[in-house]
Amino acid sequence: MWDRAGVSTPYAVVDRDVLAANVAAMQAFCDRRGIALRPHAKTHKTLEIARLQLEAGAVGLTVATVGEAEVYADLLAQADVDVLVAYPVAVPPERLRDLARRVRVVVGVDSAQGVSRAAEAGVAVSVEVDCGLRRSGVDPAQAGLLAAVAAARGVPVHGVFTFPGHGYAPGAAAASAAADEARALADAAESFTAAGLECAVRSGGCTPTAGHVDAGVVTELRPGVYALQDAQQVALGVAALEDVALRVRSTVVSNAVAGQVVLDAGAKVLGTDRPAYVEGHGLLPAYPHARIERVWEHHGVVDLRGGAGPALGEVVDVVPNHVCATVNLLDELVAGDETWRVAARGRNS
Amino acid sequence: MWDRAGVSTPYAVVDRDVLAANVAAMQAFCDRRGIALRPHAKTHKTLEIARLQLEAGAVGLTVATVGEAEVYADLLAQADVDVLVAYPVAVPPERLRDLARRVRVVVGVDSAQGVSRAAEAGVAVSVEVDCGLRRSGVDPAQAGLLAAVAAARGVPVHGVFTFPGHGYAPGAAAASAAADEARALADAAESFTAAGLECAVRSGGCTPTAGHVDAGVVTELRPGVYALQDAQQVALGVAALEDVALRVRSTVVSNAVAGQVVLDAGAKVLGTDRPAYVEGHGLLPAYPHARIERVWEHHGVVDLRGGAGPALGEVVDVVPNHVCATVNLLDELVAGDETWRVAARGRNS
Repeated sequence: MWDRAGVSTPYAVVDRDVLAANVAAMQAFCDRRGIALRPHAKTHKTLEIARLQLEAGAVGLTVATVGEAEVYADLLAQADVDVLVAYPVAVPPERLRDLARRVRVVVGVDSAQGVSRAAEAGVAVSVEVDCGLRRSGVDPAQAGLLAAVAAARGVPVHGVFTFPGHGYAPGAAAASAAADEARALADAAESFTAAGLECAVRSGGCTPTAGHVDAGVVTELRPGVYALQDAQQVALGVAALEDVALRVRSTVVSNAVAGQVVLDAGAKVLGTDRPAYVEGHGLLPAYPHARIERVWEHHGVVDLRGGAGPALGEVVDVVPNHVCATVNLLDELVAGDETWRVAARGRNS
Repeated sequence: MWDRAGVSTPYAVVDRDVLAANVAAMQAFCDRRGIALRPHAKTHKTLEIARLQLEAGAVGLTVATVGEAEVYADLLAQADVDVLVAYPVAVPPERLRDLARRVRVVVGVDSAQGVSRAAEAGVAVSVEVDCGLRRSGVDPAQAGLLAAVAAARGVPVHGVFTFPGHGYAPGAAAASAAADEARALADAAESFTAAGLECAVRSGGCTPTAGHVDAGVVTELRPGVYALQDAQQVALGVAALEDVALRVRSTVVSNAVAGQVVLDAGAKVLGTDRPAYVEGHGLLPAYPHARIERVWEHHGVVDLRGGAGPALGEVVDVVPNHVCATVNLLDELVAGDETWRVAARGRNS
């Protein structure tokens, strides 16, 4: 029901030792391959974790929105590193200009309109290319053209980036998406060369594909989830359960319906992400055969038909499916004896 | 990209005329049937909308958590009405006692443990019964027993409540769930009588089932979504598109992949609720044949194969599938010339 003064369940706890180990391991992995690590800070949204990543050797941060970049700006400026907004940014130019006064900014572009905005705001760009996800990003073969448009307008072009998100699937998907990533980034770099431009940064990666990175092509990785991990990564075989650094502490509030119990952790803390490859709406490490079968906003219904589960009133930890979604629902994380504010929560623009 | 000083997309806009009409219509519906209206304030989480509902004639508010009740407490006390926490509450008793000093509180119970907590905190209870959703709530026939346990401990028992959430489905589901609701509440009231207790309040309802309420049994309704409405209600035939009072204003940020455009409204503002009966991840009223086929955290991919859609850079409004989820992701709502704080956002406990 509560095990920390003043905090009622549900709330998120962070294991700082596991977090530190995850941060160190990914940094070491990249260092060994001579790849720069630029963690995606949308996952954790906290200054404390960003600081850990920079101290471990990250070359800067990735964010999804200008609002997130604003939160991390001072920290990045102090560390004398830049921020990549890995997104086709569409905020008012004056806001981007204000940000650029505080920290070196690179924004994603996948259109001439995006280049115009960057030119107006006076910030550098990186060209987003699609490597198979079919979300945003130009065809890799066209990247050099867009880079040339930027260069002609005096906009510094750092390179190219892609998101191999189709690696979020079981089996060989991650390896295959990493191969797509390498091919797309190589093609994009070639199109830069054809346009007479240098493509210094070839950035890829997400947590599932990182282990399959082609270090002959990729110069930078942008994983996010690795710092905290979650049930999706466990299901994909990318992380072990003991690598997960964030859990949602929850109380069993009902056992009135036979064959199940209800947790106070529902969609408003676990989120509703449930890809086909995960079992239920999160994992219960203490009760591996109980399954969170259904969620409503404040109810997580645990089916006990598969095995034992927690009793009424018991406090139990849940590993959420998608940690980015969980963190974005919370105002703070309980990390040992500290409470960390989710400073970039809800910074959607 | 932005159409209001200082606010970049994506953000939520509320049409106050539509909101006022929705609030008035549900109140009039209940008044005509002699049913008390106790709106579920988890939907909007804002003091401004709660005030509208109370001024229109609501007998009090429903909330899902003690944290929400704390936000509304002063407003409710001023209006001299009570709050029902329609949930098997499991916060520390001292916190519940503090709340009860500010406002009259009724909490849901579906176990003897819940009754003990209420007794310890000195608050009244209502017995939750299950009417077919199989989530929380005791068997209606057992409600009187639990009420007797409460009465024996000196805990005031207001009555019973149920949530006919299985009415969230197409076709005859809402009518059928409303019939289940009436049967469960009648059975529960009978079990009170058998235990020698009065069951003054028989509370039911959610937005889809409200229109089918059995006024011979149900004394109180607790719909939430009706105030703002959403794409789920439109798909269920409960609301027309013009009844929807909240939209997410969004910008087209990418058209780089053929056959689609990308909105800056993704899962972090639209949520990921997508029941089988809705088309896509939200509606685009201006482009009825375009479909939001896929969402990531900050990307809403609009498939244009079904018909015309917005152009790169265009600002377009989206009706989210589930407005409760959307509101809970946002810190504020833009309502005409006012900005309303989502004061109860993230109050998960």
